[in-house]
Amino acid sequence: MARKITILGAGLVGSLLAVLLQKRGFQVSLFERRSDMRKANLSAGRSINLAMSVRGWKGLELAGLREAIEEIAIPMYGRKIHNLDGSSPFQAYGKNNEAIYSVSRGELNRKLMTLAEESGAKLFFEHRAADVDIKKNIVTFETPQGEFIQSDHEIIISADGAFSALRNAYMKTDRFNYNQFYIEHGYKELSIPPDAAGQFKLEKEVLHIWPRKNFMMIALPNIDGTFTCTLFFPFEGTPSFDSVRTNEEVMAFFNEQFPNAVPLMPTLLEDYQQNPTASLVTVKCYPWIYENKSMLIGDAAHAIVPFYGQGMNCGFEDCWYFIQILDENPNAEWGEILKKYQDARKKNGDAVADLALANFIEMRDKVAEPSFLERKKIEKDLGLMFPGIFNSVYEMVSFSQTPYDTAIHSQKAQDKLLERIMSTGDFYTLRNEEPFQKQLASWMSEYEDDIAAII
Amino acid sequence: MARKITILGAGLVGSLLAVLLQKRGFQVSLFERRSDMRKANLSAGRSINLAMSVRGWKGLELAGLREAIEEIAIPMYGRKIHNLDGSSPFQAYGKNNEAIYSVSRGELNRKLMTLAEESGAKLFFEHRAADVDIKKNIVTFETPQGEFIQSDHEIIISADGAFSALRNAYMKTDRFNYNQFYIEHGYKELSIPPDAAGQFKLEKEVLHIWPRKNFMMIALPNIDGTFTCTLFFPFEGTPSFDSVRTNEEVMAFFNEQFPNAVPLMPTLLEDYQQNPTASLVTVKCYPWIYENKSMLIGDAAHAIVPFYGQGMNCGFEDCWYFIQILDENPNAEWGEILKKYQDARKKNGDAVADLALANFIEMRDKVAEPSFLERKKIEKDLGLMFPGIFNSVYEMVSFSQTPYDTAIHSQKAQDKLLERIMSTGDFYTLRNEEPFQKQLASWMSEYEDDIAAII
Repeated sequence: MARKITILGAGLVGSLLAVLLQKRGFQVSLFERRSDMRKANLSAGRSINLAMSVRGWKGLELAGLREAIEEIAIPMYGRKIHNLDGSSPFQAYGKNNEAIYSVSRGELNRKLMTLAEESGAKLFFEHRAADVDIKKNIVTFETPQGEFIQSDHEIIISADGAFSALRNAYMKTDRFNYNQFYIEHGYKELSIPPDAAGQFKLEKEVLHIWPRKNFMMIALPNIDGTFTCTLFFPFEGTPSFDSVRTNEEVMAFFNEQFPNAVPLMPTLLEDYQQNPTASLVTVKCYPWIYENKSMLIGDAAHAIVPFYGQGMNCGFEDCWYFIQILDENPNAEWGEILKKYQDARKKNGDAVADLALANFIEMRDKVAEPSFLERKKIEKDLGLMFPGIFNSVYEMVSFSQTPYDTAIHSQKAQDKLLERIMSTGDFYTLRNEEPFQKQLASWMSEYEDDIAAII
Repeated sequence: MARKITILGAGLVGSLLAVLLQKRGFQVSLFERRSDMRKANLSAGRSINLAMSVRGWKGLELAGLREAIEEIAIPMYGRKIHNLDGSSPFQAYGKNNEAIYSVSRGELNRKLMTLAEESGAKLFFEHRAADVDIKKNIVTFETPQGEFIQSDHEIIISADGAFSALRNAYMKTDRFNYNQFYIEHGYKELSIPPDAAGQFKLEKEVLHIWPRKNFMMIALPNIDGTFTCTLFFPFEGTPSFDSVRTNEEVMAFFNEQFPNAVPLMPTLLEDYQQNPTASLVTVKCYPWIYENKSMLIGDAAHAIVPFYGQGMNCGFEDCWYFIQILDENPNAEWGEILKKYQDARKKNGDAVADLALANFIEMRDKVAEPSFLERKKIEKDLGLMFPGIFNSVYEMVSFSQTPYDTAIHSQKAQDKLLERIMSTGDFYTLRNEEPFQKQLASWMSEYEDDIAAII
């Protein structure tokens, strides 16, 4: 008889994991609080587009879904920065024309759910986790009929997001460390429809940013010709969601701050007034596991802000690691598997949370500075000059499976290297001169030592 | 008709606040989950003695309780450090013979409860907060008879400790920041009884410390001739509560680490095996208030580890500030009062939490180093040489009402000053020499500037 696993949450991570575990012969029961999104309409105005990068693709590959998702993904090769002065420089993400991919969260989730069902997992919608007893390893669900049922399993895997029911039960145990931190900004979804001919109104294969220091708007392309725009804006102060309320205030604010976008947004006022303003939370906690009985994964273990586009990517990588550990330890007890998983991922969950917070400042403020764009250009060229030795932090995060923890720690070594280079003079003149070439080689070997020390 | 206030928790802070509010004409209802400790026996083995210092006394003065508590308080003028090599240096807390005071938590709590009752507050014991509705501003209590009742009030003040029911309700609101952090150490209460003649077996008017780097034992005197000892010890690793379990292991460990204490502890084995091992948590959160309806105070707002002896002191100072704000704003709405209270105290709650964590390292490790004791001596003498200009951080915290936030920030300026002095040579030789005196005066004026910048 197949060994049974209960997964809480049929979101992206829960659904993918169900597929992967079924493929390995487990019998998965997947419980979801909401109704089946394949039958109902999506609740609009609350989803930031996904930006799929290497870690996400790795997870999809394991499930055999790469090709299907590639068909609905739009590559974004870099940032198109809409400055207030009308300039709009482009900053490439990678040195080898790499891209991150705009994917519809709903579409991807629906495909994963169907694949989970096809692979034999049992899906239960509108089943709310009414009570979690972590010691007895029992979850009691309330069914749509108002009945209470319990699941049967060896372990519980909690993929139920930033407000996880299992994690709430962990909270009541002694010595559980927990940190939830809301940034001062919320977000609101807005929209740019296609033109009369059904074409994209802005350049398609880029991520558009309107950086305005303490706030920003971004726009990501969808396959139907629309752009999903997101305004990240403080809740309080001036300007903020609190200060920009009436139609007049909204129009005055957008005309002043995003003059090139306003003509593209015919539903701006309705979108602004009707779409909810959502908050942005970071959650760190420890432990992620309880004895040999249960574990947290994805946002349930490490909810992060969306600014690095790594929430889903990190969640899929969690699955990838968990499956690797399962595959490599076929005879291990659950207690050992869970512990190995936690040891591999906890520090990376913390690191990606910090990377995501830092990237907000990069996106809303730094990208507007010419010196920052200059640095990004030099980073790219250093990578081409010293292949395999220098990769920018962004490249490590988005185009490799370098542990997030390693990426965040290498930031310091990169800052030192780039500061040395940029304070010497114009890189593109200097790099043709022999004394500088020698100096650069020496700095680079020091950098290699620093990186080796980190790893 | 008197304006009504509900206080959750009849611990030290809740009881004191009830007294102070009754004196100002409010009608206070004080709800306590546990039974009346004046009738029942205290649950033994779970209370670290209080070390009352200036902030605590200030609170008691407002309640007119200073004299009564002085009668049951034992002054401790400094630390008596029991090193493993048999040496036992003394380190004074203050430059003017100031003391912190060992007070029985139970005794103080009982007196405050009685005073609250005498001042007209209504006390309800064995009333558990079963449900808190912060929007409607209603708490539903379960009575000892199993009935459910609600309290009537303008505001709710939550003084119900590290696991506050009101704070748990705040947790469910959007954008509530929350951090609970357990250190790797737990604690266990042990005891040194009086000798056959009823006398203290160790020097009475000091705080005894056995610093052992990663762990420590302390002992505080009680008026009945006993010392309450507390072992602060990691939960895991070697040695730890996990590794020291059997009677043989306990005796071997204590004989090795605390050889001079073992002969004084006839009930060591029973105490160790029977008293619980308790964990130590730090809680930071924000906001501390909800609209014009409720607020957190004391441990409910800022649970801290006990190493600076500031938990009760800070809680009483919270009361002192709250009462000051009430007195100074007789016509203000509650919303304004609560906001002023939060603005005054939040940063200080965070600061005292950090001070308390740092003091653990000082007590268990640094006090064993001769250079640290040398520094403490110089700090004391600097204070005497530059009265009103230099006060050690310990003095600011324990012997003044300097905001904790200011105290913690002045640490850096003090570190710089002391490092300059100690790296020049022997202070007690140098201070008789004119060039050094000039140098010192110049450093001190720089220090004054740094401190001015902090304040």
